[in-house]
Amino acid sequence: MISKNLIEKIFQQGKKSVSRAITLVESGNEKATLLLKELHKKTGKAYRIGITGPPGAGKSTLTNQLTKFYRSQNKTVGIIAVDPTSPFTGGALLGDRVRMSEIGIDPGVFIRSMATRGSLGGLSKKTIDAADVLDAAGYDYIIFETVGVGQSELDIANTADSTIVVLVPESGDSIQAMKAGLMEIADFFVLNKSDRPGSENAITALRTILMLRDHTEKSWLPNIIKSVASENIGIMEIAEEIDRHKSFLLENNLLREKREEHFRIRIKEIVETLMRNELWQKERMKDLNISLKKVVEGEESPYQIAENLFNDFKQHLKV
Amino acid sequence: MISKNLIEKIFQQGKKSVSRAITLVESGNEKATLLLKELHKKTGKAYRIGITGPPGAGKSTLTNQLTKFYRSQNKTVGIIAVDPTSPFTGGALLGDRVRMSEIGIDPGVFIRSMATRGSLGGLSKKTIDAADVLDAAGYDYIIFETVGVGQSELDIANTADSTIVVLVPESGDSIQAMKAGLMEIADFFVLNKSDRPGSENAITALRTILMLRDHTEKSWLPNIIKSVASENIGIMEIAEEIDRHKSFLLENNLLREKREEHFRIRIKEIVETLMRNELWQKERMKDLNISLKKVVEGEESPYQIAENLFNDFKQHLKV
Repeated sequence: MISKNLIEKIFQQGKKSVSRAITLVESGNEKATLLLKELHKKTGKAYRIGITGPPGAGKSTLTNQLTKFYRSQNKTVGIIAVDPTSPFTGGALLGDRVRMSEIGIDPGVFIRSMATRGSLGGLSKKTIDAADVLDAAGYDYIIFETVGVGQSELDIANTADSTIVVLVPESGDSIQAMKAGLMEIADFFVLNKSDRPGSENAITALRTILMLRDHTEKSWLPNIIKSVASENIGIMEIAEEIDRHKSFLLENNLLREKREEHFRIRIKEIVETLMRNELWQKERMKDLNISLKKVVEGEESPYQIAENLFNDFKQHLKV
Repeated sequence: MISKNLIEKIFQQGKKSVSRAITLVESGNEKATLLLKELHKKTGKAYRIGITGPPGAGKSTLTNQLTKFYRSQNKTVGIIAVDPTSPFTGGALLGDRVRMSEIGIDPGVFIRSMATRGSLGGLSKKTIDAADVLDAAGYDYIIFETVGVGQSELDIANTADSTIVVLVPESGDSIQAMKAGLMEIADFFVLNKSDRPGSENAITALRTILMLRDHTEKSWLPNIIKSVASENIGIMEIAEEIDRHKSFLLENNLLREKREEHFRIRIKEIVETLMRNELWQKERMKDLNISLKKVVEGEESPYQIAENLFNDFKQHLKV
């Protein structure tokens, strides 16, 4: 059971209760599921913004400035900073400390860092769960901020209503290869640190690449906004572009469609997690481990073992 | 049924048959499974090398040179180039054409490019299946070459006996953040283009980072090898380091352990694919899609719908 008191306090945007609820949600246990079921009916009002891009593009600074802008408009903001964990990155935590002293004390701002812990699927699930808590708590905007490496930016695009890809002039040549995944998910681009040399070239390159992009989502064309986040330049333009994209989605009845698609992905993931939990219980893992000897020695193929395990699963699952 | 003729010709390293078999394997259908079951008993002899690193590090050139070196030792080589697909990258295909004219006509070399098509899990599965075909065909070395972005390098490390991470002097500052994932999977590093300025600094930085790394795998310490692949400098040293790592694994009985672990991951993935196929059949997807309306409107929570779908799955299981 989830205490009514906790739920009431979440609905009242009590920071401590919101924080406790997210911690509960991160644990991923049954109580978390109960809480999320309770909160769901109050969700759907927050607008979800994803901010991603290569390391060093200034995503945190931009998130902070955008948050301050929204606060000046009397809007509340929940921030979920996704940190693809590694023993080698301490950056996110350091950034957090700076951030906390700047906007973290504002009662209308909630900040939470979440680590990926290697499992990308796991990340996205808990990130979205946390966003639901913030949504139910009544934050007007929820900003997901994540480094655009690997799967995480795709997860964010599958969650956000508007996805912003932040680049810098120096990203130039890497655009073609590495950030290709980022190109496809951007609702619009921000060229941050645009006071640096190479800025115009970067925009030309970006435009060229955008021309190759398929335009399926009716007639939306991703724009490119210049900013110097550290000097608060371009922040209002970014907020305006978010508004413009939101209006576009609403006018074409695409926001609802997009959210349905996001729920589709999310529900599938939840079902598959339930299934995996039931599948990889101790006894079956033991069976798997015993079979490995035969597989390494070429006696049994991985496909045969997999079929055996699956059949065993079905026999034990049947109700 | 798989024709005996095809299997015989694969065992004889017939390039056309190997190629046809990999195409079959890429389709992922039932016939592919049958073929892989047949081939498994002949696998296990090839040594599997993973080569990964950031875009532009010279992985293809290095792979080509290493291949030529092995050929000069009368060893045969199968290459699987993994291309994280995107409409924006044409690089891999272009590189392939150059490569084909250089080593592709050698009867002792087999080259295949495989795209990821968005699904990373899918990639790794088919990549490993293709490697099994090459292994059964008797290639002495199998080289997986992939850009170190996202999940793909982890997939490769979960497949290769030795994983090589290729960096360049300029990778310097990005080492800390983005390539953190690469640090953890490297059995050794190659600093390619080491005739460029900054090379010594890069090695110092790399050594510092390596000191932070946990040394669990008994006493193996990742080395750093300098190369200029385009001028064939350092290639023999790389081959020697691969040998040294292989000997280390064999002497400590770790090769078998590593391969068992790789089979464990692979079998789990196959089982989960079987499960997903059974789970997301048309009728259930229809149920899911119908429920989305209620979820978007806040009437039903995603967790409730997921539980309903899971229960329905259990009820309809055919054993």
